[in-house]
Amino acid sequence: MAKELKELTSREENYAQWYNDLVIKADLAENSAVRGCMVIKPYGYAIWEKIQRQLDDMFKETGHVNAYFPLFIPKSFLSREADHVEGFAKECAVVTHYRLKNNPNGGGVVVDPEAKLEEELIVRPTSETIIWSTYKNWIQSYRDLPVLCNQWANVVRWEMRTRLFLRTAEFLWQEGHTAHATREEAIAETEKMLNVYAEFAEKYMAMPVVRGIKTANERFAGAIETYCIEGLMQDGKALQAGTSHFLGQNFAKAFDVQFSDKEGKRDYVWATSWGVSTRLMGALIMSHSDNNGLVLPPKLAPFQVVIVPIYKNNEQLAQINEKVATIVSQLKARGISVKYDDADNKKPGWKFAEYELKGVPVRLAMGARDLENNTVEVARRDTLTKETVSCENIDIYISCLLDDIQETIYQKAFDYRDTHTTSVDSYDEFKEKLEHGGFILAHWDGTPETEEFIKTETKATIRCIPLEGDKTPGKCMVTGKPSAQRVVFARAY
Amino acid sequence: MAKELKELTSREENYAQWYNDLVIKADLAENSAVRGCMVIKPYGYAIWEKIQRQLDDMFKETGHVNAYFPLFIPKSFLSREADHVEGFAKECAVVTHYRLKNNPNGGGVVVDPEAKLEEELIVRPTSETIIWSTYKNWIQSYRDLPVLCNQWANVVRWEMRTRLFLRTAEFLWQEGHTAHATREEAIAETEKMLNVYAEFAEKYMAMPVVRGIKTANERFAGAIETYCIEGLMQDGKALQAGTSHFLGQNFAKAFDVQFSDKEGKRDYVWATSWGVSTRLMGALIMSHSDNNGLVLPPKLAPFQVVIVPIYKNNEQLAQINEKVATIVSQLKARGISVKYDDADNKKPGWKFAEYELKGVPVRLAMGARDLENNTVEVARRDTLTKETVSCENIDIYISCLLDDIQETIYQKAFDYRDTHTTSVDSYDEFKEKLEHGGFILAHWDGTPETEEFIKTETKATIRCIPLEGDKTPGKCMVTGKPSAQRVVFARAY
Repeated sequence: MAKELKELTSREENYAQWYNDLVIKADLAENSAVRGCMVIKPYGYAIWEKIQRQLDDMFKETGHVNAYFPLFIPKSFLSREADHVEGFAKECAVVTHYRLKNNPNGGGVVVDPEAKLEEELIVRPTSETIIWSTYKNWIQSYRDLPVLCNQWANVVRWEMRTRLFLRTAEFLWQEGHTAHATREEAIAETEKMLNVYAEFAEKYMAMPVVRGIKTANERFAGAIETYCIEGLMQDGKALQAGTSHFLGQNFAKAFDVQFSDKEGKRDYVWATSWGVSTRLMGALIMSHSDNNGLVLPPKLAPFQVVIVPIYKNNEQLAQINEKVATIVSQLKARGISVKYDDADNKKPGWKFAEYELKGVPVRLAMGARDLENNTVEVARRDTLTKETVSCENIDIYISCLLDDIQETIYQKAFDYRDTHTTSVDSYDEFKEKLEHGGFILAHWDGTPETEEFIKTETKATIRCIPLEGDKTPGKCMVTGKPSAQRVVFARAY
Repeated sequence: MAKELKELTSREENYAQWYNDLVIKADLAENSAVRGCMVIKPYGYAIWEKIQRQLDDMFKETGHVNAYFPLFIPKSFLSREADHVEGFAKECAVVTHYRLKNNPNGGGVVVDPEAKLEEELIVRPTSETIIWSTYKNWIQSYRDLPVLCNQWANVVRWEMRTRLFLRTAEFLWQEGHTAHATREEAIAETEKMLNVYAEFAEKYMAMPVVRGIKTANERFAGAIETYCIEGLMQDGKALQAGTSHFLGQNFAKAFDVQFSDKEGKRDYVWATSWGVSTRLMGALIMSHSDNNGLVLPPKLAPFQVVIVPIYKNNEQLAQINEKVATIVSQLKARGISVKYDDADNKKPGWKFAEYELKGVPVRLAMGARDLENNTVEVARRDTLTKETVSCENIDIYISCLLDDIQETIYQKAFDYRDTHTTSVDSYDEFKEKLEHGGFILAHWDGTPETEEFIKTETKATIRCIPLEGDKTPGKCMVTGKPSAQRVVFARAY
């Protein structure tokens, strides 16, 4: 077994350390020389590219187009929307100067005090303000609506405690920003994109999610309503995987974006914004992986199948190469991505451990006996099971297997969530259950005060008011006051 | 004719204004509220996505992988490589603080003086330094080489005089950064990527380019040798469209990146870097477009064919819709992207002008007579010619037409360059020819002083020492000293 593999901390021993070990050892990302900023390594980036491509296709299918807006936001823009500035203007990277000069005392460069900006620029923490200042020029009439733009970009939020993928000062994301003629249309868009995210999470990431609405405390700064999808990680903690905001007319008013309707009446434009980020990488890792390493859903794996030859001499290798070439071309013809690792400077055992660590869904190994019998050894990463299979119709076999793996890991994650979702009716029971992790469905009186009280006492937050499921009214577990429906509590990332 | 079209300044009247008008009116990009930063609008971004996708495929075919490195560079990193800091540390965006606070005097937010960074961060103008500080941890042995990474990213260079796409403070680009065990391998990589760029420019952008080597004056700050591709725009000015740098061991030495070879001997790693940017959008526009608007090569057009119905009543429209549906599915089956514009709030004439302005390669129009005759009117954007064609096998016809357009606009650009490339032997002739624009092939004594003298007197620079073509030695047109070969002079963007 490879050295790296042995060094992976087990989940039971220390989940946080296991996560960090895995991100580093599977070559997904690492910390950089710049505090809080990560380097996304090629293997990690290849997964992110798969995520991007699929989401981008789904955005385009739902009528959206991509555009690009400036990295910098004039400081004054942030103050235009009162709630927004409270939420975002605080911890951010501020550009104050535009030139360096040689240090007059020698040794490197220093900031040129004469090159001070009149108005400081903020590195975007999110782009509502710069985008709505642009939309003002794009929108005059109902004929210009809707505007359905998305942007793939980097953003910066000055986080003090960072964790690879989960919370970094700089991260990559997409942010959709749409403009509509009516309130109803904007709400429909907000919900549509929530559903796109949920579909992506479940069908591609194989991660079941709860769709819901955030409480006022957890709402996006500047939104009227924030919708979210929440996943449950293997350690019983929740992770917010995507948000979709109904912004009302807040930003249109802040940037004076009005339009004329068919009758010539002027009104402010209605807005939404929605985003997912490289945080999804963290969610993906913590949904499926195990003590041997990463487990990737086939739909997002950079390569779905790896083939390793096992041979004693060059003659055997030549025979295996020939057989494998056929299998590779059959698999490719079915749209299956495959890597043949015939590197001769590494032993098969090393390769097995390496691809296990990297979560390649299916591993094929071919040796002398397989050559004789026209077979191949098929190992699936999710269950770690192996079987010997005929090369006859191997492409069909693998194609079905990949579907089965995708379905199996989804079902496993679904079952985990199912057995870790509990309804409780008293606060004592709530506190007791919370120690075991998971989603807790409980009644709440709807006030920020009670929510805050519970959070302070237990570190649990309301993840969302779920859109689906039981809608029976009840009584708040803390205050006994009326509750419209159970909400989802959990400790969260 | 549409209002917008009339307002496009002609190229003859004012080329710079024509360019700016076109970028704005064809919805490619616009200036933002942030000085020097542009907004890339959806139609412009769709072209950039085509460019990205094709280049990305070509990078991957040549063995490269994508990764992502931090936006910020610690100030001290820039000083590590002496030439590099001279070239890049001067005009750049400097982050000095990480927090804003409410203005104690009311009205917005101010920089919190207590949140001053110990070391300033520079928004990357290029990423050699941050990447080589990372490679130090990735590379120990020859087994870790080569490293062949590319990054798609935004970069910032504080330009004082900006022009949409051609020169902006923030721009989008890709930057490849590779690490090799030998000098020869690194040089081979530098040349390989130059050829990838040249192939992309010629086959996809339909823009002929000269491949060459930059003089010391024009070399990338920190490179041993800079290779480039140079295009000739319609106004006779040159445009550097891509560069590929052989960096020697400069950055490996600056960041102490050494490796052990097979014999265990330690040496510094050899490096290359190479990039193209959204500047290519400017090159694309200025290679082919005309006074009616954009002319796009079919291989990079967001949609290659637009179909416009011309009808008097709903019955006719229904018949046209039916016919068009068949054509659309035939075209799509051949991988041709097509838009059917049946919007009823705009007249056919408006649509014709709009798609002409936007450079859609082929426009089909179908009216009552076409229905009777089973024909369609085919207009090509590049030549502005129209003909009536049978609907029988229209997909094959269009497919060939798109190939022909791609070839024709390349040939037109090639012929333009050919007739605007002159060999001169005296400095007087040089100055005279220069007034007509174009590439001028002349002998030069190889010294930076002579190059600088010519630049100061004439504003012409040496675009490159061409790799191909006449290699006959001669005498410098200015000093009469020996010259190894003719070099390419031009005024440039």
